[in-house]
Amino acid sequence: MKLLEERIQRDGMVKAGNILKVDSFLNHQMDVDLFDRMGQEFKRLFADAPINKILTIEASGIGIACVVAQSFHVPVVFAKKTQSLNIDGEVYSSKVTSFTHQRVYDIIVSKKFLSPEDHILIIDDFLANGCAVTGLMELIRAAGATLEGVGIAVEKGFQTGGQQLRDMGIRLESLAIVEAMDDTTGKITFREQPHQN
Amino acid sequence: MKLLEERIQRDGMVKAGNILKVDSFLNHQMDVDLFDRMGQEFKRLFADAPINKILTIEASGIGIACVVAQSFHVPVVFAKKTQSLNIDGEVYSSKVTSFTHQRVYDIIVSKKFLSPEDHILIIDDFLANGCAVTGLMELIRAAGATLEGVGIAVEKGFQTGGQQLRDMGIRLESLAIVEAMDDTTGKITFREQPHQN
Repeated sequence: MKLLEERIQRDGMVKAGNILKVDSFLNHQMDVDLFDRMGQEFKRLFADAPINKILTIEASGIGIACVVAQSFHVPVVFAKKTQSLNIDGEVYSSKVTSFTHQRVYDIIVSKKFLSPEDHILIIDDFLANGCAVTGLMELIRAAGATLEGVGIAVEKGFQTGGQQLRDMGIRLESLAIVEAMDDTTGKITFREQPHQN
Repeated sequence: MKLLEERIQRDGMVKAGNILKVDSFLNHQMDVDLFDRMGQEFKRLFADAPINKILTIEASGIGIACVVAQSFHVPVVFAKKTQSLNIDGEVYSSKVTSFTHQRVYDIIVSKKFLSPEDHILIIDDFLANGCAVTGLMELIRAAGATLEGVGIAVEKGFQTGGQQLRDMGIRLESLAIVEAMDDTTGKITFREQPHQN
């Protein structure tokens, strides 16, 4: 998506350790008008999929997922990272290794909100090693729901998560795929995606 | 807001310990079309305020804040609950006591995203003892920004947070104020708010 790539080039910052900081518009301060344009693009890309629910993971996925969901007119469910007193009854759970926080945590979704009737689009802000998406897929599988696809804002194409998902036959659309980045020059190179706006 | 009160009556569940579960549409599964109507109502209620940014706190405030922000066409900043590797440089911080999780935690916002030029609307899903809002107000004060008001989806009117904020002269709009609830009968009583839709 050219609009997002241009925004990353303008406001993104490459840091040592393969960190791309996009916190001024994507995952700390959030540009909701940009999110709305991203939602329209996801709707175009997944137009033929019978999506009735969007699944994401707290925290930074929630904002994008909620705005994107308005283009689909479907509810959002977010997986929580810790057991909360406000979640009673049974939950689906899986484990995720966080690249950012360098630890393993449990994610849970109430069984009330995932069922075999659901056709799910996973939405998240970042895809790197794919652990968050894999954890969400386990929840979907446990519920007997159908995964229709995965929509990502920024994929780090030089890490393995995206390729692993594509090799599994999962329909993955990343609106910007960073092919390479250099923290000494700040240069960011994107993968060509001719089918995208 | 009648639409929200009706939804709470229909889908909310009163549990022992003064817990109101609205996780089927507000803070686990999220009805984004309802959030959009809430955003239009907040925009009507704060029409005269020169709001240029919305501030919320992870995790369940983010979805509502992002959809509400679309009615204002302003960015959202969310306060994070723990120090993350992805936040470098200086941050504003304060402490919040969680009613739900019964513990104290730090909240932080990067100094890049709050400044004396900002006119802030705080948005959150719940107001009970007011600790989250008070913590966010400390961040705003530290940044020298202006607090224009506080917009809440559901206020527990029988707890003290709302009255404390109103006594401080803060402009607070809660779209539904629960005056009383009974976990044996399930009955929920709302405070009358004639100025609201």
